[in-house]
Amino acid sequence: MSDRFAARRDRFWKLLRDTGVDAFLVSNEMNVSWLTGFTGDSSWLVMSAGQSILVSDSRYETQIAEECPGLELLIRRTDQKLPQVACDYVNSRKARRLGVEGHVVTLETREALVGGLAAADLIPVSMRIENDLRSIKDAEEISETRKAVNIAGRGFDFLRATLRPDQTERDAAYELEHAMRKIGAESVAFTPIIGSGDRAALPHYRPGDRKIGDSDLLLIDWGAQPPSRYKSDLTRTLVFGKPSSKFAKVYNTVLEAQKRAIALIRPGARCGDVDRAARGYIADQGYGKRFGHGLGHGIGLNIHEQPRFAPGSDTELKPGMIVTVEPGIYLPDWGGVRIEDDVLVTKDGCEVLSAHVPKELDQMITHW
Amino acid sequence: MSDRFAARRDRFWKLLRDTGVDAFLVSNEMNVSWLTGFTGDSSWLVMSAGQSILVSDSRYETQIAEECPGLELLIRRTDQKLPQVACDYVNSRKARRLGVEGHVVTLETREALVGGLAAADLIPVSMRIENDLRSIKDAEEISETRKAVNIAGRGFDFLRATLRPDQTERDAAYELEHAMRKIGAESVAFTPIIGSGDRAALPHYRPGDRKIGDSDLLLIDWGAQPPSRYKSDLTRTLVFGKPSSKFAKVYNTVLEAQKRAIALIRPGARCGDVDRAARGYIADQGYGKRFGHGLGHGIGLNIHEQPRFAPGSDTELKPGMIVTVEPGIYLPDWGGVRIEDDVLVTKDGCEVLSAHVPKELDQMITHW
Repeated sequence: MSDRFAARRDRFWKLLRDTGVDAFLVSNEMNVSWLTGFTGDSSWLVMSAGQSILVSDSRYETQIAEECPGLELLIRRTDQKLPQVACDYVNSRKARRLGVEGHVVTLETREALVGGLAAADLIPVSMRIENDLRSIKDAEEISETRKAVNIAGRGFDFLRATLRPDQTERDAAYELEHAMRKIGAESVAFTPIIGSGDRAALPHYRPGDRKIGDSDLLLIDWGAQPPSRYKSDLTRTLVFGKPSSKFAKVYNTVLEAQKRAIALIRPGARCGDVDRAARGYIADQGYGKRFGHGLGHGIGLNIHEQPRFAPGSDTELKPGMIVTVEPGIYLPDWGGVRIEDDVLVTKDGCEVLSAHVPKELDQMITHW
Repeated sequence: MSDRFAARRDRFWKLLRDTGVDAFLVSNEMNVSWLTGFTGDSSWLVMSAGQSILVSDSRYETQIAEECPGLELLIRRTDQKLPQVACDYVNSRKARRLGVEGHVVTLETREALVGGLAAADLIPVSMRIENDLRSIKDAEEISETRKAVNIAGRGFDFLRATLRPDQTERDAAYELEHAMRKIGAESVAFTPIIGSGDRAALPHYRPGDRKIGDSDLLLIDWGAQPPSRYKSDLTRTLVFGKPSSKFAKVYNTVLEAQKRAIALIRPGARCGDVDRAARGYIADQGYGKRFGHGLGHGIGLNIHEQPRFAPGSDTELKPGMIVTVEPGIYLPDWGGVRIEDDVLVTKDGCEVLSAHVPKELDQMITHW
């Protein structure tokens, strides 16, 4: 295990060559985790030529020994602050240019670092670990994501099998998490969005006290987080009884838009082009103003990672990326439809990791 | 409801007088929530003389209309970034000194703001909302916290009533959350720490696959989060069968330390003195090196808030503060004991909100 993380640190250190830094401070918790295997918080990784050291505190000493065998460790005392201990170490390494994560370090932390550094200048470097490294998953990360997708798929089967018209959105969300935990999840990957009727038109709705049987559609956006913390993220929209022609049109428009986007996913495809395939089709069908969010995003240790499917994005897909594809149409006071799958970019195309979770319209029809 | 939040914004604006700012950007999500009632994310509150405006995006338009009646709203387009829209608004207000939260704004965000501001200088102001406002709870916040404490207490009753020796720590944690949801929690307030045997010596342990019956002690650190999001945070340590004399000594040392600390809690008491009452007693009993963390912290919308009980802290307690008191003794390879209650500072003393949750040694003895 430890070799895997040491190899990641090596890759990151080589990536940093073009920045001219001679030391680097990783303070984003998930980046520290990705580079070391440590799953706690309040700890920074300080890297310099040929050496990496994790600065933490006594609460985590045993956990770090277990999770990060071989990693050098600096335990600060209760009366010492993290920035000062990190600066003392950087000073001892005689660093002149200390790279920091510009999208993570706050103005307050910057002040503490500037005050504690003897000779080093601060060089903000943003999103390199996220964009250049974590966005591309290795075989183990892909396998962990498959597990998360499979647990989510079984969770959906459970939810459909047990759904009752007198059940509230909230209760359905709680039962879904409880069921996924019994089959290997540590938790949901995020608070599920379970929205019935017009609530399905709110892309970031949280489950409430509405009874599921009080309307004729139910949007479910959920995911599983196994102990590995690699997450899944899916959406399906159920319809109760025979769908209206309006529902059928909206549903099939979203589904066709999603299929067109997925058909473009391969190495070298631009994120903006994939986004346009779905967005353009939805606009052609007359719903252009009813799809207000991006088409999708990377998933991994975080639920929102790189790359992003956004209008105009030049980012190119690469093998090993895992992305959601999730177009939607939202009609205020009526409801909404979103369909979301998790897609792995392969060497010569893509694989829909959630292909086994049904999504055709006739498969979404539910009878009480 | 909206008046309550408008009153908070007025108080904050008056507080800012000594900083000389003529506009202020609130970007911490919980601070935005505390000042507006909005429970989503990705939104900033921009305040200037006599005016507050929430800058958000279309995903949240309906939610904001429901949660923040009367609050001015600026919805950015998908192709506009949050800092630019905020800057355009600040520029339109002709602000010269824009206060920002120095403990929240990153170097990257700072750069975007500096690039977008026409005439305003950035003035970092750190932790004012947290230290001067949110640390003191009003009657409604106290009432919400009571609910969270009561749900946690009933959750503990459930856990004890259903605990089995063949149950894993993980399963116990899942069942605890599921039970608390049935009696009004939206979720746990944080991932519970349920550690058996020597795992109880790890103050930040996460529940694993150990069977609870495989050792003779179990540390449970848990809390409830109702829909209001005001949290509770408690710890109890169970012992299975007749306690050893070592366990009894450790347990009663922690309990006496906690009681001594609580006895000092009243308006005007210094946090460092409260911390010392517990820490000094534990040291006197020969366990000084076995209590490595702070004595406690404020709770509220966040699980860790101001004030903090830390050695040497000069912070004075004020009526309306709600704090945890949680001394512990941790012996590697043996186990640990921590006892934690939630305490409200009253006009002339304090009230232990979790006083109904048993904590005497003989009440912790559990027989299979």
